[in-house]
Amino acid sequence: MDRGRRREGSGRRIALLVQYDGTDFCGFQIQDNGRTVQQEIEKGLKVLLKETIRIKASGRTDSGVHALGQIIHFDTLSNTSLDRICLGLNGIFSRDVSIKNAFDVNPSFDSRFSAVEREYIYLIYNHPQRTPFMKYRAMWLNSNIDLDYMKETARILVGEHDFKSFCKKISAEDNTVRTINSIEIDRNYDLISIKISGNAFLHNMIRIIVGTVVEMYKEGRNPSYIKQILGKKDRDYSGKTAPAHGLYLSRVLYNPELSTYPSAY
Amino acid sequence: MDRGRRREGSGRRIALLVQYDGTDFCGFQIQDNGRTVQQEIEKGLKVLLKETIRIKASGRTDSGVHALGQIIHFDTLSNTSLDRICLGLNGIFSRDVSIKNAFDVNPSFDSRFSAVEREYIYLIYNHPQRTPFMKYRAMWLNSNIDLDYMKETARILVGEHDFKSFCKKISAEDNTVRTINSIEIDRNYDLISIKISGNAFLHNMIRIIVGTVVEMYKEGRNPSYIKQILGKKDRDYSGKTAPAHGLYLSRVLYNPELSTYPSAY
Repeated sequence: MDRGRRREGSGRRIALLVQYDGTDFCGFQIQDNGRTVQQEIEKGLKVLLKETIRIKASGRTDSGVHALGQIIHFDTLSNTSLDRICLGLNGIFSRDVSIKNAFDVNPSFDSRFSAVEREYIYLIYNHPQRTPFMKYRAMWLNSNIDLDYMKETARILVGEHDFKSFCKKISAEDNTVRTINSIEIDRNYDLISIKISGNAFLHNMIRIIVGTVVEMYKEGRNPSYIKQILGKKDRDYSGKTAPAHGLYLSRVLYNPELSTYPSAY
Repeated sequence: MDRGRRREGSGRRIALLVQYDGTDFCGFQIQDNGRTVQQEIEKGLKVLLKETIRIKASGRTDSGVHALGQIIHFDTLSNTSLDRICLGLNGIFSRDVSIKNAFDVNPSFDSRFSAVEREYIYLIYNHPQRTPFMKYRAMWLNSNIDLDYMKETARILVGEHDFKSFCKKISAEDNTVRTINSIEIDRNYDLISIKISGNAFLHNMIRIIVGTVVEMYKEGRNPSYIKQILGKKDRDYSGKTAPAHGLYLSRVLYNPELSTYPSAY
């Protein structure tokens, strides 16, 4: 990794590790109305590098969804150092977006297509009373939930399945088969974190999974009931979509051009 | 602890465990201009219990300072159950204040004078680039700091000392001797937490301690230099006051009428 200056005019591809608080964004992807992360970053790059740059991301995030480790890439003729790009952009951005790191990558690197694994974290604040500190940071669940129940349900979902029941109806693609590599569920005081890794996810897949597991528990269903829902291949049989503000794109893994550091606040 | 209904008109003293995000408050104590936590709670109690109630807190917090476990108390003639008080107030409040628990306490209980220990947490986000998730939640330190250095400096401060050098000048009382029971410093990825317990603290004492330790490290001072600052008994010799938004009133301990649960988000 070369953090110094490059030869002028040679052209290069840069990847950025980006964090954003999704609260005040209408999602990642640029659109006509509404502030988006893509727009914010492209505007910043224009100011800093005096170039009109189009960025690409590992994946779009919906309105309200956060990112601890989103990866984007772009091409530029600029020879600005990576450190100056980080500091320069952070000086321009509003305080709800931040570049945590920058990498010179191979011209064949693509933040979306080179990704080998994506990791998301869903946070549930589980307490009879809400907390101001998790207002836009976690789903609030004021009733009890059993962690072993959640883990048992999760175990059934791990692996390759047709997740059509867990995909936003309007977005359903032809191929709704996906592989979940792992689901880790932990509790730290009142905060439950659900960490899900997989190659790729369907639209709203993680939020529908979380909403369904919570609903199944409330309704006194057996964990294995989720197998039946999978089998139906119909969104009508799964539960409500859990709120966007509990979801974080936490890590994207590449092999071997770029690896991100362990993501945390 | 009696969570049920009480005899009408008998009068009772209630203590509340309160959390607030200090960002949009001009501190705890009621004032003519500006929104305060006290005002928000008293307004809520008036709506819920139809009584004009004056609350008292374990201690005031300054503008921007947060609370994970503030304790307040008040007297009321109402026989409303504790659960209804929690839920009712949380239904009325803005989402930056929350009642986490309510207790019937002895009429001699005083949230301020019965407190035997107060615990504060100061958070430092230590990374070259800022993060959107700690915007109003932690002081941002973009240069390196050594945890062992901080711990060594902290060890010198533990115990009974005259902390006049660590007290806001204008607020200095006659007696500036205080006892720090313990200081625990931990790092979790990029987040450094400094947990300080003591019987009571001077105005800005914790924020000046944090600011001073950071400054001492930057200036290459020996940890024992803090002993000299203590000895001067003059605010001019200590460092800058660290920002309010890194400070959390995390716990207040009482003995034996009321004990709060381990505080976390």
